[in-house]
Amino acid sequence: MTFAFSGTMRAQPGHRDDVIALLLADQSALAELGCLHYLVGTNDAEPDLVYVNELWVSAEAHDASLQLESVRAAIQDALPMLTGDFTNFGFEVVGGLGA
Amino acid sequence: MTFAFSGTMRAQPGHRDDVIALLLADQSALAELGCLHYLVGTNDAEPDLVYVNELWVSAEAHDASLQLESVRAAIQDALPMLTGDFTNFGFEVVGGLGA
Repeated sequence: MTFAFSGTMRAQPGHRDDVIALLLADQSALAELGCLHYLVGTNDAEPDLVYVNELWVSAEAHDASLQLESVRAAIQDALPMLTGDFTNFGFEVVGGLGA
Repeated sequence: MTFAFSGTMRAQPGHRDDVIALLLADQSALAELGCLHYLVGTNDAEPDLVYVNELWVSAEAHDASLQLESVRAAIQDALPMLTGDFTNFGFEVVGGLGA
């Protein structure tokens, strides 16, 4: 079942775009693992928040991505620029436009 | 700029799937308005929650959809089956796989 994952992470003031650059650096490996969508974005109402919406062929594919060396390295690089304030949820897609 | 919108709504116990059916009933009008993705789903860890991830050609297209008669009717039909517990966030997509 297609799996969607959405979340936010709060950057240290002034570092939001650095975190975004890390997330967008190399996504080819994600696609190879079954990532269909990995959208990164911002909202002017929350200048320090980084937003992510992901879509995967399965929850297992999403979990496997967290073991990727490139993903683990990006997380390590990003952590010092993050406050530790994360929100997220994941769900099995049951239908809808683009499912 | 592409606009992503994600959220959850809590159904009254036993009504989650009724709400999902309403959301999935007729999405053709959404596509015509610029909806690229309208994914609806569930998570066994939260049996009463309905999850939605949307992707629109713009925030304006998303806002316009809320004026659609079919969307307003679906919301009216769903409200009695919802507890009023909503979470959501929206963001401008700056990049990523599938952006």
